[in-house]
Amino acid sequence: MTSPDGHSAAFNQPLGGNTMPRFAGPASMFRLPTAQPAGAVSVGIIGVPLDTGTSNRAGARFGPRQIRAESALIRPYNMATRAAPFDSFQVADLGDVPLNTYNLAASIGIIERYYDDALARHPGLRTLSMGGDHTIALPILRALHRRHGRMALVHVDAHADVNDEMFGEKIAHGTIFRRALEEGLVDPQRMFQIGLRGSGYSAEDFDWAAKQGVTVVQAHECWYRSLAPLMEQARARIGASVPAYLSFDIDGLDPSVAPGTGTPEIGGLTASQGMEIIRGMFGTNLVGADVVEVAPPYDVSGNTSLLAANLLFEMLCSFPGCGRREGPG
Amino acid sequence: MTSPDGHSAAFNQPLGGNTMPRFAGPASMFRLPTAQPAGAVSVGIIGVPLDTGTSNRAGARFGPRQIRAESALIRPYNMATRAAPFDSFQVADLGDVPLNTYNLAASIGIIERYYDDALARHPGLRTLSMGGDHTIALPILRALHRRHGRMALVHVDAHADVNDEMFGEKIAHGTIFRRALEEGLVDPQRMFQIGLRGSGYSAEDFDWAAKQGVTVVQAHECWYRSLAPLMEQARARIGASVPAYLSFDIDGLDPSVAPGTGTPEIGGLTASQGMEIIRGMFGTNLVGADVVEVAPPYDVSGNTSLLAANLLFEMLCSFPGCGRREGPG
Amino acid sequence: MTSPDGHSAAFNQPLGGNTMPRFAGPASMFRLPTAQPAGAVSVGIIGVPLDTGTSNRAGARFGPRQIRAESALIRPYNMATRAAPFDSFQVADLGDVPLNTYNLAASIGIIERYYDDALARHPGLRTLSMGGDHTIALPILRALHRRHGRMALVHVDAHADVNDEMFGEKIAHGTIFRRALEEGLVDPQRMFQIGLRGSGYSAEDFDWAAKQGVTVVQAHECWYRSLAPLMEQARARIGASVPAYLSFDIDGLDPSVAPGTGTPEIGGLTASQGMEIIRGMFGTNLVGADVVEVAPPYDVSGNTSLLAANLLFEMLCSFPGCGRREGPG
Amino acid sequence: MTSPDGHSAAFNQPLGGNTMPRFAGPASMFRLPTAQPAGAVSVGIIGVPLDTGTSNRAGARFGPRQIRAESALIRPYNMATRAAPFDSFQVADLGDVPLNTYNLAASIGIIERYYDDALARHPGLRTLSMGGDHTIALPILRALHRRHGRMALVHVDAHADVNDEMFGEKIAHGTIFRRALEEGLVDPQRMFQIGLRGSGYSAEDFDWAAKQGVTVVQAHECWYRSLAPLMEQARARIGASVPAYLSFDIDGLDPSVAPGTGTPEIGGLTASQGMEIIRGMFGTNLVGADVVEVAPPYDVSGNTSLLAANLLFEMLCSFPGCGRREGPG
Amino acid sequence: MTSPDGHSAAFNQPLGGNTMPRFAGPASMFRLPTAQPAGAVSVGIIGVPLDTGTSNRAGARFGPRQIRAESALIRPYNMATRAAPFDSFQVADLGDVPLNTYNLAASIGIIERYYDDALARHPGLRTLSMGGDHTIALPILRALHRRHGRMALVHVDAHADVNDEMFGEKIAHGTIFRRALEEGLVDPQRMFQIGLRGSGYSAEDFDWAAKQGVTVVQAHECWYRSLAPLMEQARARIGASVPAYLSFDIDGLDPSVAPGTGTPEIGGLTASQGMEIIRGMFGTNLVGADVVEVAPPYDVSGNTSLLAANLLFEMLCSFPGCGRREGPG
Amino acid sequence: MTSPDGHSAAFNQPLGGNTMPRFAGPASMFRLPTAQPAGAVSVGIIGVPLDTGTSNRAGARFGPRQIRAESALIRPYNMATRAAPFDSFQVADLGDVPLNTYNLAASIGIIERYYDDALARHPGLRTLSMGGDHTIALPILRALHRRHGRMALVHVDAHADVNDEMFGEKIAHGTIFRRALEEGLVDPQRMFQIGLRGSGYSAEDFDWAAKQGVTVVQAHECWYRSLAPLMEQARARIGASVPAYLSFDIDGLDPSVAPGTGTPEIGGLTASQGMEIIRGMFGTNLVGADVVEVAPPYDVSGNTSLLAANLLFEMLCSFPGCGRREGPG
Repeated sequence: MTSPDGHSAAFNQPLGGNTMPRFAGPASMFRLPTAQPAGAVSVGIIGVPLDTGTSNRAGARFGPRQIRAESALIRPYNMATRAAPFDSFQVADLGDVPLNTYNLAASIGIIERYYDDALARHPGLRTLSMGGDHTIALPILRALHRRHGRMALVHVDAHADVNDEMFGEKIAHGTIFRRALEEGLVDPQRMFQIGLRGSGYSAEDFDWAAKQGVTVVQAHECWYRSLAPLMEQARARIGASVPAYLSFDIDGLDPSVAPGTGTPEIGGLTASQGMEIIRGMFGTNLVGADVVEVAPPYDVSGNTSLLAANLLFEMLCSFPGCGRREGPG
Repeated sequence: MTSPDGHSAAFNQPLGGNTMPRFAGPASMFRLPTAQPAGAVSVGIIGVPLDTGTSNRAGARFGPRQIRAESALIRPYNMATRAAPFDSFQVADLGDVPLNTYNLAASIGIIERYYDDALARHPGLRTLSMGGDHTIALPILRALHRRHGRMALVHVDAHADVNDEMFGEKIAHGTIFRRALEEGLVDPQRMFQIGLRGSGYSAEDFDWAAKQGVTVVQAHECWYRSLAPLMEQARARIGASVPAYLSFDIDGLDPSVAPGTGTPEIGGLTASQGMEIIRGMFGTNLVGADVVEVAPPYDVSGNTSLLAANLLFEMLCSFPGCGRREGPG
Repeated sequence: MTSPDGHSAAFNQPLGGNTMPRFAGPASMFRLPTAQPAGAVSVGIIGVPLDTGTSNRAGARFGPRQIRAESALIRPYNMATRAAPFDSFQVADLGDVPLNTYNLAASIGIIERYYDDALARHPGLRTLSMGGDHTIALPILRALHRRHGRMALVHVDAHADVNDEMFGEKIAHGTIFRRALEEGLVDPQRMFQIGLRGSGYSAEDFDWAAKQGVTVVQAHECWYRSLAPLMEQARARIGASVPAYLSFDIDGLDPSVAPGTGTPEIGGLTASQGMEIIRGMFGTNLVGADVVEVAPPYDVSGNTSLLAANLLFEMLCSFPGCGRREGPG
Repeated sequence: MTSPDGHSAAFNQPLGGNTMPRFAGPASMFRLPTAQPAGAVSVGIIGVPLDTGTSNRAGARFGPRQIRAESALIRPYNMATRAAPFDSFQVADLGDVPLNTYNLAASIGIIERYYDDALARHPGLRTLSMGGDHTIALPILRALHRRHGRMALVHVDAHADVNDEMFGEKIAHGTIFRRALEEGLVDPQRMFQIGLRGSGYSAEDFDWAAKQGVTVVQAHECWYRSLAPLMEQARARIGASVPAYLSFDIDGLDPSVAPGTGTPEIGGLTASQGMEIIRGMFGTNLVGADVVEVAPPYDVSGNTSLLAANLLFEMLCSFPGCGRREGPG
Repeated sequence: MTSPDGHSAAFNQPLGGNTMPRFAGPASMFRLPTAQPAGAVSVGIIGVPLDTGTSNRAGARFGPRQIRAESALIRPYNMATRAAPFDSFQVADLGDVPLNTYNLAASIGIIERYYDDALARHPGLRTLSMGGDHTIALPILRALHRRHGRMALVHVDAHADVNDEMFGEKIAHGTIFRRALEEGLVDPQRMFQIGLRGSGYSAEDFDWAAKQGVTVVQAHECWYRSLAPLMEQARARIGASVPAYLSFDIDGLDPSVAPGTGTPEIGGLTASQGMEIIRGMFGTNLVGADVVEVAPPYDVSGNTSLLAANLLFEMLCSFPGCGRREGPG
Repeated sequence: MTSPDGHSAAFNQPLGGNTMPRFAGPASMFRLPTAQPAGAVSVGIIGVPLDTGTSNRAGARFGPRQIRAESALIRPYNMATRAAPFDSFQVADLGDVPLNTYNLAASIGIIERYYDDALARHPGLRTLSMGGDHTIALPILRALHRRHGRMALVHVDAHADVNDEMFGEKIAHGTIFRRALEEGLVDPQRMFQIGLRGSGYSAEDFDWAAKQGVTVVQAHECWYRSLAPLMEQARARIGASVPAYLSFDIDGLDPSVAPGTGTPEIGGLTASQGMEIIRGMFGTNLVGADVVEVAPPYDVSGNTSLLAANLLFEMLCSFPGCGRREGPG
């Protein structure tokens, strides 16, 4: 059965641009129905509007709202890969985590419980998260770890986020991957940090992770080339069954591509490299993914939010089991 | 029964800022529940994202989306008037009219049918509409006229919108009130145009309506003074039982107050004058109201959309039957 | 004596809003003289400020005005290619097409007649058009086809624009190249679509054109490399005598390069690739070219309009017969 | 044959950047015909894109271009006063003064000569000037003084502009009215400074002019009231035959009304007060007027330029002899 | 002794615009010397870049930086009141409080100690504070209370900020004046809340303070009139010796005047009313004052920060002992 | 000795992000102490806020202020090269040159004397300059030439800046390198112009320098490739002892990377290529460097200023003697 917009109607479908103009209709992610589906949900999209963990420009709290608004432009099929995620999965926008804006530590707990609950309510749920600043990745990883055990991690970012503390605090957007490694949530041998660059508090900032066994790929190692070969290696190391997580800080990309973020660093990845990293996750057992650090007040044209919406769509296409339509050949 | 946010729970309630941060949660108007209520709806909020009737800057198509987003800041009680609309009415966001962006004439028909249907589905429904450009008022008035007969009209605007045609077309955002008068939808003796000003195609542009019996109040007659006395007169003329409509073009206000609009004119009304006009409608049999011509691409700070959300809230407080809480005295 | 706009005609009068849309009218591309030259015109620059065919963000109606404004920065010689177009051609800014903003179908007819007239008035005229949205390419191709017969076409875009209809309409900015192929205006064997990408209504969106014989080059096939080799192939296929058209949707380029547009898609072409495509047209019998979909309200720095002005200058340098100055060697 | 800009002159050529600054050149105020009328010109509109006399934010160089662009919205009749300037006068856009951007002193001389020439070419010409920064008023007053002798002056501004020097320079945007008084260009007994306010280099900044006999009306004396009575007094003092000049610094208005300017001061005049001042000039022998200090880079919505275009239109309506259409009464 | 910029040189002086261009030089408040003066400081300017207490739009953390940058435009004398603060006081920019961004409760303590230390280091110090969000007023009031005892308070704001808690937290930008009253820091009989308006969580939101004896003046009571009479009453009630504090939330002003803030409400005070309130404090024993809630990311033109810099200058002029220069009369 | 932020304390150190939040603290470059160090200064950072030499968009006068503000994000170590400039040099922000904004010729003299004085005061000083427009490079080169004699020059730019005059003036931002060559300040055999492109006044614009022996590398020769090999050649030609200067016009980079500038040209260098050029200077005897033409009014997100701050940091890391920390290997 095929709807007028040409998709199968078994699952939730994005509202089509020929059914409701793109600039109208509900501001849910991909304009999915806002009523929750009765049955199982394969992929749950969750907004985590936290930005009190950020060290410089605030505003990522509006990330989920703005990404949802711009996601109206996304149609259901991936033209490059022919992936058809809405034919393959029941996808639902599970709303926003109701944070306590005035208390970062309390919010970390709220996020953890929200993900615990969602994973309990929807067995087999894979999560697609929209930040918010990068701090949110820690409570998400904790909840996923309780379900899946130790995970592989591909981490796209300008910053290593492995400081021991910031202003004396153990949890903030620059410390979370040290915490995740210390807590054993991720396997350093299967962890990749891609796009790191800029200036640091010490010349050794990026060495700590490397010493734990993490593969660190600085941005300048990526300039002028495809990252498909790198992802092939990563995929080989990660394997097809180990649960994997993809955490994508939008500042991993160059500020020309993603101006609307809080701590931009020059000389970053191109959009195409970012897409290659995400597409390169297909074939792993991806259990969750996020896009973080989109700060709408600095995203004057709205294009950083639109970029994030597209990256989330590409992630959806990389979850295991996502079907690909036959090509013309 | 009182919820943690302090309101009665009999009707739909805006999601409170202490339940979900203001910058998060669903982008429905006033963050009302997105699921439609089972029973009767007293006030239906409808987005009409049409801007192909506009003659200068486009962008009003994004009005409903942006007004909804900014409406997150509105709380349920009116501090100046002590009005408590959500205690008094079942209010629901009925979504957006699915327009045909490529065909203005077709869209006019779609809007008419959408309102006809809503009025049929919800007996006694009063409508609160968000434009879109001013063209939308014509099909809305037609549908309301079929329900209620000839109406009183208070029209706030910089422009009279009584051209006979534009570019040879009979329907566009500058012709609609000539059409409404010609079609007998409104009673010229009970019609008020407030805030008119600027330059015109002929010096007689504002005279046509006056000749039909319409009361025309130019902006310069309003400078430096309260409009409460004017509204007292208007209310006396309209009476308490004649069905009344309030059409509020945001460009009736000064561009300093409402920069985000398509055809701004200098020397307009202040926000407080706009609020006095709306509050002055309380006591009439208001059956519908709209705010039109908010053009988000020109509303850099978001404050024009926020203004519109507040004006819509004030309109809600002016619908007949809206209770007022006792004061401390 | 009174003109249709109601003013006496004894003295100079402002151009009326019902004779030419407000967002169009005088200004001059490349700051060329505004008085029309007495003799033959080789290249005519025409603004087509239409944006009612667009499906998402409006604003391309201001494209011609803003591109003209930013074109002030262009000087007469091309430093990379040493092309000297103003030594070689009589170039004139022929003004804007006076569209009917309220009626898309009527506007299509107006554009066709405007080009028919210009081509009749200036034998041998080659046209350089500024959109407006992509819908304008259809009436332009029709007029050129009447002069030149079936044409080769190089189409730079993120989108294939080969939908059968949008919202039930046969003509809108996403359907025009299906119409052009159906009407036989262009030769599919000599048609190239470059830069296509993003998400689609169906996974087969790009296949329809390929099935007609069109060469489809998706964006990801272009990443990290020069497009000079591709254009060499295209030129070989097109040949030197077949009339050729170049239609350049600014969203073919990456949003980092061209943020000010209505339906941006991530992972697009670089500015240098765009320039290589245009430069690669030199040697064909280019009879017309356009740059479309520049939306100034989303072009905060003005740089997308400036980019468009430069691309139009590069197109001017690629018209057959454009001389190249000797180098120092 | 080669022109000074180095191109051959056989064909149309772009206007060179060394003949006219890049930010100046063609476009047309009120969309008047760009071809100059054969006969007499009553009112000449002149752009003076100078901003090297400014002390803080630059950008007023783009004032004339942007004001012309926004003036597209102005129609030919004044709805409040029923003035019909285009029925009464031959109005022409005389283009921009070709300044030397790199040399302020040289530019002052260029402006003077440009006005001398225009006044010689068009006997009886009244000038309507668009800045540029306020420095331009001095050479304009000098040229008008040569024609008309000592003039009355109404000066709307936040600043008195009567410093003796700035950075050791005698001519800059803060010194010009001291120069004009010293040179006897204006009659201090018939000079009014309205809207002055803010902080000063000394507490006596505003006293110097008062001591010369100038009437100084500080902004706080204007708050919350109509300026019609003040203008009645001014008109009585000036009389109907003494040549009068109106110099309107857009920063005389409050920054909420005119954000796009270089040295804004809080607590300024409202738009309606500005309009009352201009309308109050009708009845004097106004020989010239200007609007200065519009800085488009700080005018995000374009509304300050639109305001300036409207104020220029109001000035046009205040030139002596401007007819008023009969009202309906 | 008088410097080239015309001021006495006994105390720190703002760097003059004729010594260093306004757009250059140190970004200290009023461009005061950055080296701390050896002797006593009468007025200390302190930045408190906290915005983790805010409920909606963040960004006030950049308030101090941006207000300092825009303060370059302020000159040393008040033209309306002839106040000469830099002749009267040793004024110093004491820098920013080094907050812990990740922990709101910790930051409250850091602010308290910073003010305690400053007051201990500079006996007789009066503080002029730049937020940051309104939460900062509580620790400031606590420190001042330890020095001065119970204070009079004039509170300009759209919101009463007397919630008992927000999201379960006792300290956030909407609870601080309830805390201040509960802790006995301010005397309700000498407390005035001016400009309150908008929508509330309950219709009684503004009643709590009134019940404690606070004088509540809603915005609509202020429309269209001078607030000088109100301030005369306030001054009479406060008296000349009771220590007084002025807390000025920029959102007390209308969004047209102060767009760059986090929770704007329509129908607010004008800039002139705000200035009258501050000027009306002269004659009281003002011991401290603040301007809070300026959010630079939403202040596109920079004018809200410039407004704040001017309000801080007006506050400086209202501290007791500020001399006024003789007028010309 | 190591400070809490992990750096040695012998020299001035940037204020750390864990000592003061990034968005707070003094707006000196890299947040260095504002008090001048007692002893020798190795590298002096100087702001030159001149923009009256610019031909198109003004605003570079705010470059130094905005670059300093954004430099708060820079930390002391270079993660890619492991350079540790603050361990190696005494770096000081020497403030802004106090220009005469109203007189370009006078300002050139002021700049020359300012640099002469700084070089006299700090023997061995190397200068790091922030424009301002490119005109500033001429007086800087003159002062450095008096110290060091004829210099090598690497010039990154879209424009050759070798016009003989502009508007009849010999000194403006487009003539300075002709002057520098004519005056013998730089050695053409050791001069490289990289990134040139766009349109020109004549096809020979770039040939003049080539004829003097300058190596001209047009932008299109750089597309899609690393510039490390080019810099290897340049370094070989320049040698290790000849004094060298690096002048970096931000418009050498593509407008997508550096939108906030006055005369952008499409098809420019990437940020990574810019970084490779600067890093490629390490090994030469770099005596001075600059970044010019950042125009904050056109830098909406602030990212062009942030880019400039990073490039200045990279330059600091390329001064001879800058230590590099050992890597993990």
